[in-house]
Amino acid sequence: MTLHNFNAGPSILPKTVLSEASNALLDFNGSGLSILEIGHRTPLFTSVMEEARALVRELLQLDQAHEVLFLHGGATLQFVQVPMNLLGANQVANYTETGTWSEKAIKEARLFGGVQVAGSSLHTGHTTIPKSLNLNPSGAYLHLTTNETIAGTQWHQFPTAIGMPLVADMSSDIMSRVLDFNQFDLIYAGAQKNMGPAGVSLVIVNKNCLGKIDRSIPAFMDYRLHIKEASMLNTPPVFAVYVVLLTLRWLKAQGGVAVMEQKNKAKAKLFYDTLDALPLFQGPVTKEDRSMMNAVFLLQDPKLEKEFLIAAEQEGMVGIKGHRSVGGFRVSLYNALPIESVQAITSFMHSFSTKKG
Amino acid sequence: MTLHNFNAGPSILPKTVLSEASNALLDFNGSGLSILEIGHRTPLFTSVMEEARALVRELLQLDQAHEVLFLHGGATLQFVQVPMNLLGANQVANYTETGTWSEKAIKEARLFGGVQVAGSSLHTGHTTIPKSLNLNPSGAYLHLTTNETIAGTQWHQFPTAIGMPLVADMSSDIMSRVLDFNQFDLIYAGAQKNMGPAGVSLVIVNKNCLGKIDRSIPAFMDYRLHIKEASMLNTPPVFAVYVVLLTLRWLKAQGGVAVMEQKNKAKAKLFYDTLDALPLFQGPVTKEDRSMMNAVFLLQDPKLEKEFLIAAEQEGMVGIKGHRSVGGFRVSLYNALPIESVQAITSFMHSFSTKKG
Repeated sequence: MTLHNFNAGPSILPKTVLSEASNALLDFNGSGLSILEIGHRTPLFTSVMEEARALVRELLQLDQAHEVLFLHGGATLQFVQVPMNLLGANQVANYTETGTWSEKAIKEARLFGGVQVAGSSLHTGHTTIPKSLNLNPSGAYLHLTTNETIAGTQWHQFPTAIGMPLVADMSSDIMSRVLDFNQFDLIYAGAQKNMGPAGVSLVIVNKNCLGKIDRSIPAFMDYRLHIKEASMLNTPPVFAVYVVLLTLRWLKAQGGVAVMEQKNKAKAKLFYDTLDALPLFQGPVTKEDRSMMNAVFLLQDPKLEKEFLIAAEQEGMVGIKGHRSVGGFRVSLYNALPIESVQAITSFMHSFSTKKG
Repeated sequence: MTLHNFNAGPSILPKTVLSEASNALLDFNGSGLSILEIGHRTPLFTSVMEEARALVRELLQLDQAHEVLFLHGGATLQFVQVPMNLLGANQVANYTETGTWSEKAIKEARLFGGVQVAGSSLHTGHTTIPKSLNLNPSGAYLHLTTNETIAGTQWHQFPTAIGMPLVADMSSDIMSRVLDFNQFDLIYAGAQKNMGPAGVSLVIVNKNCLGKIDRSIPAFMDYRLHIKEASMLNTPPVFAVYVVLLTLRWLKAQGGVAVMEQKNKAKAKLFYDTLDALPLFQGPVTKEDRSMMNAVFLLQDPKLEKEFLIAAEQEGMVGIKGHRSVGGFRVSLYNALPIESVQAITSFMHSFSTKKG
């Protein structure tokens, strides 16, 4: 049976990437050693780190002020590292509150300074993205979560001329669409959705916004030291960085972020058009704020949920259960998911609908 | 040519582990999905985490007060996490200073409270382990680095009845010898030497020493939350944990830590006996403090170093160059290194010696 992997993260990766990674576990680049057994300061690995960094720069068209880092941990560490580096104890940072992930970021930031919630979708049950913000004008920065993996919402337009650094958690939509990435002063993203395996995050930081506060920062948490050491402050998560490199190479070979965006748009359109056409299903998110990456939906009749899930799994649909905190269903449409998988689930929704209708 | 992998970390892993990991990248446990593509909260992965935890408990014979965690990052993160959780701002912690790694730990601890250097080998150029300690009796804990990977020293006896928690960085000798592991209140170890790939660390903590200070701790850094969430506070480094599990299974199949210790002793004896027998070479570390894991040595005539290195590499010796901070040579004798590799390098040392002698 063909499996269709809609996991929200860790999630589907290109087959060629998995195959190359599998080979590298036995013999990396003809070295006779596994990728897991090589010294991280040898040219065998430093060339991996360098190429991955260069590909990020190229694919996202970053300017010279922006530095590219690969760090341990996921976005949860960045929830701490961002305010530790950018938010003085007597300062306030602006945060938008759009779902589980931004709420977690806000909670950690409060340990380091003040937080002004500059916009919130709490009143809509996180089914919308705020359209106007109430910024503290002297805020250290504005933080937003570009795609809420659980709520299924996504920012499609970004605040401009805010007069302070713009910080974005792009864990679940990095590399999925063309943006002016230089408008962000700090971008962070756990790799395990669009870029690779769990255990590494990409951090892109405008070096001009560092060093403005006087907190003592532990070495492991200091972006300036990671820049200085080229992401080799300590032993990096070697294998995870290597799989990110393979995924970025694949992405470039596909035609880059612009081509990926077209494919993602086509997948999202097919899914949402189906959702809207079938009264059996319901999409809770306001149409204009729907995520291209994570489509959440419910059955009009919750009693049918279990039957739908079982039948879908029998057809090879993997990972479509909604997050444990919200229930319902979710299909994740990340870069590596082929449109054939979206065709499969939408066909299945049609036939399930017909059977029940 | 047969390669002999003496890398200090990331380092050699058992061939069977690499082969199983390579297969799991294509199809994990017959799921049809790669280990990189599965949800970390599915039974497919939670069973990996549970078995790895249980194997650590069994192999190290831990009591019920000790909790086993697998966390992101390496020991460098633990240099921060330990004092953040255990050292109050007005308290003092005792640290021993035995080389690069303990120095890094001390530096980070000073950001959170006071540090008393209770013993130091600085005056011997870190070629010894302190034999008596000058403890601050009201110290929050005593920290030591059981094996200094760069200096090539190892603690062979541990302070007893110190009246405070004992904390140990065991990154480079965990699982290599039998100890009463319950005498330690906190053990941490980056996996990339004896346990698996870079990108995950094992933390073993006596839960009774947590929650004694009143600092606000970010979620990602709070051992109590990681215990509560069974190392699933956020997406764990899935693949790295899986390879650790495979390595622990291998270790158990070999006969456990006691058998490993016998093999490691035999390897270390062969190497150091050779070193001591050949006047061309010199071991800087005091004999009684030599590491069973990382043997460092110099050539009596530094002008021969380059020739020795090139000739050794031609014979398939990998990773024998000393750390960039100290020079000379180092062979790492971790669990997965077969005695045949030690036979190979000692034979080579003999023949090089004869040629030059």
